[in-house]
Amino acid sequence: MPKIFTATDIQQFDKEVQKDYFDRHTPVIDCPSEVNENERFPVRIFLGSQYAHPDDGDHFIGKVQLWNRETLLAEATIFPGAMGNQPGHVEVVFTIIPKVSMNLTAMSYCTKHGLWQSLPKEVKVNHPDQQCSKS
Amino acid sequence: MPKIFTATDIQQFDKEVQKDYFDRHTPVIDCPSEVNENERFPVRIFLGSQYAHPDDGDHFIGKVQLWNRETLLAEATIFPGAMGNQPGHVEVVFTIIPKVSMNLTAMSYCTKHGLWQSLPKEVKVNHPDQQCSKS
Amino acid sequence: MPKIFTATDIQQFDKEVQKDYFDRHTPVIDCPSEVNENERFPVRIFLGSQYAHPDDGDHFIGKVQLWNRETLLAEATIFPGAMGNQPGHVEVVFTIIPKVSMNLTAMSYCTKHGLWQSLPKEVKVNHPDQQCSKS
Amino acid sequence: MPKIFTATDIQQFDKEVQKDYFDRHTPVIDCPSEVNENERFPVRIFLGSQYAHPDDGDHFIGKVQLWNRETLLAEATIFPGAMGNQPGHVEVVFTIIPKVSMNLTAMSYCTKHGLWQSLPKEVKVNHPDQQCSKS
Repeated sequence: MPKIFTATDIQQFDKEVQKDYFDRHTPVIDCPSEVNENERFPVRIFLGSQYAHPDDGDHFIGKVQLWNRETLLAEATIFPGAMGNQPGHVEVVFTIIPKVSMNLTAMSYCTKHGLWQSLPKEVKVNHPDQQCSKS
Repeated sequence: MPKIFTATDIQQFDKEVQKDYFDRHTPVIDCPSEVNENERFPVRIFLGSQYAHPDDGDHFIGKVQLWNRETLLAEATIFPGAMGNQPGHVEVVFTIIPKVSMNLTAMSYCTKHGLWQSLPKEVKVNHPDQQCSKS
Repeated sequence: MPKIFTATDIQQFDKEVQKDYFDRHTPVIDCPSEVNENERFPVRIFLGSQYAHPDDGDHFIGKVQLWNRETLLAEATIFPGAMGNQPGHVEVVFTIIPKVSMNLTAMSYCTKHGLWQSLPKEVKVNHPDQQCSKS
Repeated sequence: MPKIFTATDIQQFDKEVQKDYFDRHTPVIDCPSEVNENERFPVRIFLGSQYAHPDDGDHFIGKVQLWNRETLLAEATIFPGAMGNQPGHVEVVFTIIPKVSMNLTAMSYCTKHGLWQSLPKEVKVNHPDQQCSKS
């Protein structure tokens, strides 16, 4: 198992020279912070806010995973060429259905630079039925 | 390898009783019919226009794949529970970058009912640079 | 979904020139023909009885799957470089536990030449307890 | 991303009650400690030296991965039922071809108890050609 690079590591780097390295590998989760129980919602995961990642046979993003705490909800496996063999921003959207509040994390795997972890994303899950029964 | 069930099979079934079976398993591709070379675009794949699929440990959608002709571009592996262990519409969005015109197909895999194939989706790829050079 | 190439197609080709093409892509299942219920046994899947397959970034064996009829039991995803970026014989062994008689098929996926299917392998499953109770 | 449980954690637990928990989840690598460059060799990964793991829809071993340092060489995805829906020892054998000395690690993923890491396995790679050229 590799060292896992995390989104928080990037803040330690002042110099621009390493920012691209972190930016293009670190997955970012984009989804609502509050959802309703039993209502499906999309979780968008993308890589590279500024810098695109290569899509070469010896250097590509091979996996994007979505975890809820210890649980792997879904993962995308991507083969080289999906991004046209050129630099691009990998992006996957999974749709999930929540039961209780979640702590989501995304992981991405680069075939040359290993495993990268997003910042965690708290998703509060409202329970409408329970709210009704309280009144 | 199982028999592969295809979206065209559904039209052979007049009776409502089997429509749900086909509808909830067959993936549908939603993406533009015309895109530009080297411009990333999203390909949405969803299951069940009307009928939702269970998410039980012994019966769930375990895979959604995106093919371009003979080539597997990307696939999602989904573990039971991602849809809250209740019926839902599985949906994945992959982002790809095109070089030449594509013939996309989606596949879904149900752990109980095997492998299902979408209708093909032609995507015409425009080559802006070539158009310029013609003028 | 691509055309699926099958092990039986190879017999149509007399000429040596195409034999290597079929040989290096077609998975072969190697496992006992008769096993006992509830006793784990290995299923070996290998590619290329004579001809080795490249392991290049734009041309590698990316998947090896084991199916029992309509059911995907397990699959290996292989990234380029696992075979040292040189021609080799991909091989995976899965261990499974049988309940009733099986009809196994292996699939392999080449990133350049698509999806290939093995000959089916019948595995008879003996039920020792039932045999005892008969006597 | 979950906490990653490691094979070394098990030594902290004196009491038998937790030994089964660690034993049945922790992958173990079985392969030669010394191999030749460019010669394929099998890497066997198994779970549970003593205790078998369930294969239920809500609790199964879903993944077994083989890493060389930061690099994911191959992974098996296993669907519930492959082990007959009963406790068993998951086992996968990957075949790889080495170039230089390796530091292998296996990971396993349990859908209920998260991600587990093996002890690392050093594999020394001999370079026969270089030895010849020295003499």
